Amino acid sequence: MGDGVNKVVLAYSGGLDTSIILKWLQDVYACEVVAFCADLGQGEELEPARAKAEQMGVKEIYIEDLKEEFVRDYVFPMYRANALYEGVYHLGTSIARPLIAKRQIEIANDTGAEAVSHGATGKGNDQVRFEMGYYALRPDIRVIAPWREWDLTSRNKLLAYAEQHGIPVPMDKRGEAPYSMDRNLLHISFEGKALEDPWNEPDEEMYMLSVSPENAPDKPTYVEITFEKGDPVAIDGEKLSPANLLARLNALGGANGVGRLDMVENRYVGMKSRGCYETPGGTILGVAHRAMESLTLDREVAHLKDDLMPRYAKLVYNGYWFAPERVMLQQMIDASQAFVSGVVRVKLYKGNVIVVGRKSDYTLVDERIATFEDDAGAYNQADAGGFIRLNALRMRIASMLRNGPTG
Amino acid sequence: MGDGVNKVVLAYSGGLDTSIILKWLQDVYACEVVAFCADLGQGEELEPARAKAEQMGVKEIYIEDLKEEFVRDYVFPMYRANALYEGVYHLGTSIARPLIAKRQIEIANDTGAEAVSHGATGKGNDQVRFEMGYYALRPDIRVIAPWREWDLTSRNKLLAYAEQHGIPVPMDKRGEAPYSMDRNLLHISFEGKALEDPWNEPDEEMYMLSVSPENAPDKPTYVEITFEKGDPVAIDGEKLSPANLLARLNALGGANGVGRLDMVENRYVGMKSRGCYETPGGTILGVAHRAMESLTLDREVAHLKDDLMPRYAKLVYNGYWFAPERVMLQQMIDASQAFVSGVVRVKLYKGNVIVVGRKSDYTLVDERIATFEDDAGAYNQADAGGFIRLNALRMRIASMLRNGPTG
Amino acid sequence: MGDGVNKVVLAYSGGLDTSIILKWLQDVYACEVVAFCADLGQGEELEPARAKAEQMGVKEIYIEDLKEEFVRDYVFPMYRANALYEGVYHLGTSIARPLIAKRQIEIANDTGAEAVSHGATGKGNDQVRFEMGYYALRPDIRVIAPWREWDLTSRNKLLAYAEQHGIPVPMDKRGEAPYSMDRNLLHISFEGKALEDPWNEPDEEMYMLSVSPENAPDKPTYVEITFEKGDPVAIDGEKLSPANLLARLNALGGANGVGRLDMVENRYVGMKSRGCYETPGGTILGVAHRAMESLTLDREVAHLKDDLMPRYAKLVYNGYWFAPERVMLQQMIDASQAFVSGVVRVKLYKGNVIVVGRKSDYTLVDERIATFEDDAGAYNQADAGGFIRLNALRMRIASMLRNGPTG
Amino acid sequence: MGDGVNKVVLAYSGGLDTSIILKWLQDVYACEVVAFCADLGQGEELEPARAKAEQMGVKEIYIEDLKEEFVRDYVFPMYRANALYEGVYHLGTSIARPLIAKRQIEIANDTGAEAVSHGATGKGNDQVRFEMGYYALRPDIRVIAPWREWDLTSRNKLLAYAEQHGIPVPMDKRGEAPYSMDRNLLHISFEGKALEDPWNEPDEEMYMLSVSPENAPDKPTYVEITFEKGDPVAIDGEKLSPANLLARLNALGGANGVGRLDMVENRYVGMKSRGCYETPGGTILGVAHRAMESLTLDREVAHLKDDLMPRYAKLVYNGYWFAPERVMLQQMIDASQAFVSGVVRVKLYKGNVIVVGRKSDYTLVDERIATFEDDAGAYNQADAGGFIRLNALRMRIASMLRNGPTG
Repeated sequence: MGDGVNKVVLAYSGGLDTSIILKWLQDVYACEVVAFCADLGQGEELEPARAKAEQMGVKEIYIEDLKEEFVRDYVFPMYRANALYEGVYHLGTSIARPLIAKRQIEIANDTGAEAVSHGATGKGNDQVRFEMGYYALRPDIRVIAPWREWDLTSRNKLLAYAEQHGIPVPMDKRGEAPYSMDRNLLHISFEGKALEDPWNEPDEEMYMLSVSPENAPDKPTYVEITFEKGDPVAIDGEKLSPANLLARLNALGGANGVGRLDMVENRYVGMKSRGCYETPGGTILGVAHRAMESLTLDREVAHLKDDLMPRYAKLVYNGYWFAPERVMLQQMIDASQAFVSGVVRVKLYKGNVIVVGRKSDYTLVDERIATFEDDAGAYNQADAGGFIRLNALRMRIASMLRNGPTG
Repeated sequence: MGDGVNKVVLAYSGGLDTSIILKWLQDVYACEVVAFCADLGQGEELEPARAKAEQMGVKEIYIEDLKEEFVRDYVFPMYRANALYEGVYHLGTSIARPLIAKRQIEIANDTGAEAVSHGATGKGNDQVRFEMGYYALRPDIRVIAPWREWDLTSRNKLLAYAEQHGIPVPMDKRGEAPYSMDRNLLHISFEGKALEDPWNEPDEEMYMLSVSPENAPDKPTYVEITFEKGDPVAIDGEKLSPANLLARLNALGGANGVGRLDMVENRYVGMKSRGCYETPGGTILGVAHRAMESLTLDREVAHLKDDLMPRYAKLVYNGYWFAPERVMLQQMIDASQAFVSGVVRVKLYKGNVIVVGRKSDYTLVDERIATFEDDAGAYNQADAGGFIRLNALRMRIASMLRNGPTG
Repeated sequence: MGDGVNKVVLAYSGGLDTSIILKWLQDVYACEVVAFCADLGQGEELEPARAKAEQMGVKEIYIEDLKEEFVRDYVFPMYRANALYEGVYHLGTSIARPLIAKRQIEIANDTGAEAVSHGATGKGNDQVRFEMGYYALRPDIRVIAPWREWDLTSRNKLLAYAEQHGIPVPMDKRGEAPYSMDRNLLHISFEGKALEDPWNEPDEEMYMLSVSPENAPDKPTYVEITFEKGDPVAIDGEKLSPANLLARLNALGGANGVGRLDMVENRYVGMKSRGCYETPGGTILGVAHRAMESLTLDREVAHLKDDLMPRYAKLVYNGYWFAPERVMLQQMIDASQAFVSGVVRVKLYKGNVIVVGRKSDYTLVDERIATFEDDAGAYNQADAGGFIRLNALRMRIASMLRNGPTG
Repeated sequence: MGDGVNKVVLAYSGGLDTSIILKWLQDVYACEVVAFCADLGQGEELEPARAKAEQMGVKEIYIEDLKEEFVRDYVFPMYRANALYEGVYHLGTSIARPLIAKRQIEIANDTGAEAVSHGATGKGNDQVRFEMGYYALRPDIRVIAPWREWDLTSRNKLLAYAEQHGIPVPMDKRGEAPYSMDRNLLHISFEGKALEDPWNEPDEEMYMLSVSPENAPDKPTYVEITFEKGDPVAIDGEKLSPANLLARLNALGGANGVGRLDMVENRYVGMKSRGCYETPGGTILGVAHRAMESLTLDREVAHLKDDLMPRYAKLVYNGYWFAPERVMLQQMIDASQAFVSGVVRVKLYKGNVIVVGRKSDYTLVDERIATFEDDAGAYNQADAGGFIRLNALRMRIASMLRNGPTG
């Protein structure tokens, strides 16, 4: 099965599954493995992974903090689009995969590897997101997806393989993991097991990034978010780097029970599945960004964005971040954000994110015209008569010609 | 100015403004006025309007309870589309106007009136919604929009006119009304005055249909909503008529602080304005309907609906309910709902509507396939490799041809 | 490799390739083959296929004339949508595959077969179109795609296999076929070989259904096509069945050099390829249908159709005829056609299809209003001022607020 | 009626109608008129207009050749979008109006004029296109649209006014003009009068820019068009400026009977009307540009462009050239054209524009992969099986769960 693979770059977490994959690659492909650990804010120490990899004989180990790049070049552009998959999902897992794929390919180029590998299963979306990235960035890359190749198709077989190859199995991994999880600075996801029946309410204990609305404080928290050209740049007046800003919003949202989601979603590979998510900061950001736009975007620009949003979100969900059509949409979206600058004030309270104010030097609210009070002629109400009559004309003609006059 | 109008059907509320209009029509057009009061759930006694109209010499008075028709034929079809204008607004005012317009035209036909009239101003959307309905249903109807014609352009002039013509002015109408309001069984809206500055948080006292999240009970309320073909038919197992069902949801939502919205919206006539809304029952219904669809709609059908939703919502907002393109979209949407039947369980808590369960005889969740556990061959993971490779092929070819191989 | 397949229904043409497949199925799968020959207007006698199949020991042979069903239930619905893939392709091959797939599944159900098979290669769209149909109509069907399985990967190996198994090879099949072709009542397609370089002009000799524009008559031919609810029903006043009508249009178009197309298209499986097509009757029909709609469809309905047309065309091209989203779009499209009735007059001349007249009892052209002459007040030109001012308002506000007044 | 207008910039052609308007403005508004004549390729000497304007006492006269700007900044960007209104119209009139409006506003700014005026009627699209431009570029501009204001509502009144004010009426303007025409370098349009009945075939004599297909040469003409980043830059290898290139294509197309169109269109102001057009060069350009894209654009980019094309075309048709949503779409479209470079070879013959070849350094046709011959493993046919099975999975699951297995 060697197939002439001499070196493979593995997206390695240090956990049990990717440790087994690491060993399996060495074993089955008889190749050198380059271990790549990306810190996207999953909240775990990554240095222990280095030791593990070294123990398994890995010579090239990349452990990298990508949090700023992740938020600045992936999360924020996506929020400019107001992207929500199927109306509700903040795409927290989807948006992380392309960056990992990109770095894997760069490392493969740097280390002279012919192949890359990942730990995503053959049933989910993540395999697609990883591999779309790989292929887009290096079309002749060799991809090894162990879950689609090996015969370790049950938990028991995996554990047996680990023991057989001297991979330490942490106590808490012996039993069945209650859920499949993925975490980064934008969110955490939960799938599988107890969640598979969409009628069952998830356990409160499952959640990790937020308190429940019930356990959140009885007093609301007010937050002011400053935007520049569509991106948040400050919280309550304090300028923050992208990753720090998102972390701050996560803390604020999580403390106030904000950002939980329980949904049934449609995977790209064709089946429905139930997923639960926590996106505390992202949920605040999404609401605030839309509010900032409501004040500063032209109506038709906003509606064009709304019309294309589901398409954009689908591209991100399905793994097409590096595809030319996503890039093309992004150019249009980014161009729309030139005036999306100002401040949005939100109130966080037990799960709610309530917009209570927005202001901007580029506001398009002209109180002089919108007022129901005397407007000193800024708007001529008589104009509306012609506006309505011409907009109705096609319907009037149809009715007259087909039904005749009614008088 | 008489213009040969002998009889006009006025959308009459019994309030001060439409009483002035009634008198003004008699006065300026020297015509007979037919008064039409529709009960769409605005929560006011309408019989006093009869007395007032009679007092002003009106001979033909129509006072009608349209609540069931409103919810069954207007609200529910709109919720099948998951319609939200500009991502957030439940279209509570927009959806009520077409029904009023339709009945006005029917009454005009029945009473031999040549004209219809309404109390909407020349700056807002409602004039468009009323008149689009009029013109679509009777193309040669004469429309009288007093606010666009008369010179009563200030509150003082209006009050003077009222006094001059013996129209009683209630004490609380002497001062400035704090907001412009519109209420029906689906929602209440607030605009104008103190709300005009979008940086100002509205007063808690403004709201009428809901307690604040802060004042809502400390215990959550669980509700089960049964759907049949896209429409809700029962609450907690109890079958209810459309209007009664929506009223029940309003009570549940309102008691739990659900359904408030504070937004800056784009009016059809071209300006932005700030509006606040309470849609307690509709907010629950929207969340629950989407959850029911998430279990029972084919992915591509759901995505097609999502792609067209903003367009549909815009049509409703802009007053095109009776336009052929809205009807055409509705036919497609309705066809999609054949299997949207089942039960959704939601948890209401201090402003939150949290989906905690959904089940259906027509579920498309196949746990046998979605499971990350052993699936006994229901899904062949190897299929994913080909799926990804062919989906990536166009990007790989482009990269190979334009950049050459990288190996 | 037998895999427990006892009986397979093969889409059989009687030609060399599917004869080899027939034998290969008997040989490799050791199963009974049911031969199904569909007459979709490919212009060949099908009875010889029966003899060939019998000779190879086939006991169940279905030879069916599906031309009327093809045109009535597949071609005409597609033309209601004005479907053109990538702006130009009439989808002649795409639209035929679903019907063949449907009948294959029905025959499989009737004959107790567990599997179906087809002769499409692993590189093209047709495999997808066949198999999408199979899976949609019988989800657990076993599909055998010999071109993706066997090792007969060159012409020589195929011919050797034929000889080895006593399959007669016609003289003209010994050499390289100049093109890959597919023909039915709607069109003929040419791909491959000499056409692979998109810079090369195809040989005039390639074309089969049409004379060249140069060789077409020097006098134009006028044709009147009568439509009822979006479908053509008569030519020059003569009522014709769907298949006969399309055949008549093919004759008229072919004689006048109408309907050739030379394009580079994007296949669903990810590569571009050059294809040439002749669609003489379909080209006339497409132009005439759009002209009929131009007179009878509401503007916004027409625009909604135009906006969704590329999506519909892509669904047909990609093989999603039986998918719920295609069905859903079709319901909307069909609903739009209620008034698309009348007569279109076209002039055919050396490759041109020129609309020279259209009339309908349901015309929406109101000459009284459209006229630039005196219209006796049917249209009030002053209305346009208000119409324009309100449509421009958002741009005026933006400019005033951001740039200030200019006066 | 003076209204404080001291100076108005009139879009002046030197013809009878705008001469009457010029006089009427001087007369009714008692203001100074600045005459602006733009040469957009209407094929008339403009210097005589100067004399006429001087004769009427105009002191500021601007006569400008805008042909290069017209083609470079308006026509070519529009062709990058493949824009066709209602599937067929090349938008020849629509695209000229914004440029005229822009120059009028610039001249108003330069000359200190408070107002602008044009000669478009109150029934057509041109008034909207002019005035949208005016308002977008100078929000507080005063617009005078004489046709919507005056009482010269018949030909006789106009002629009487001309005589009364000493405006010379050319002999051929005394009778009824057979059609309303508009001409520029991109096209000529014909509307009204004899064309009003959409059943009548227009007279051959009407057309001005092209011979009829019947009268075109019996030999085809081959033309090679070179594109760079989406724009044509050379004809048969000869580099040409934008206007010269379009003129060359007009000559080639016109001589070969290319570019006539007879349609019923939907005006923005609400009525349908019949229009005939000649766009000889533009028709060639449209076909060639799409062919260039077919070779060089990614599939999904091309499809995204196709999906949005009708929307873009509608914006241009309706006069929203300077609106932010058109600009935003243009940014996306322009970004897509980076690799749309190469050569397209077309054959012109008696009205036909037939693409016979395309080549590019950036071609995405990979013959190695597309070939039906042995591809040496460039494409793994087995991949298609997984591709199809996963794409069909949602339909299979639905069928299994709702109908059960069929075996």
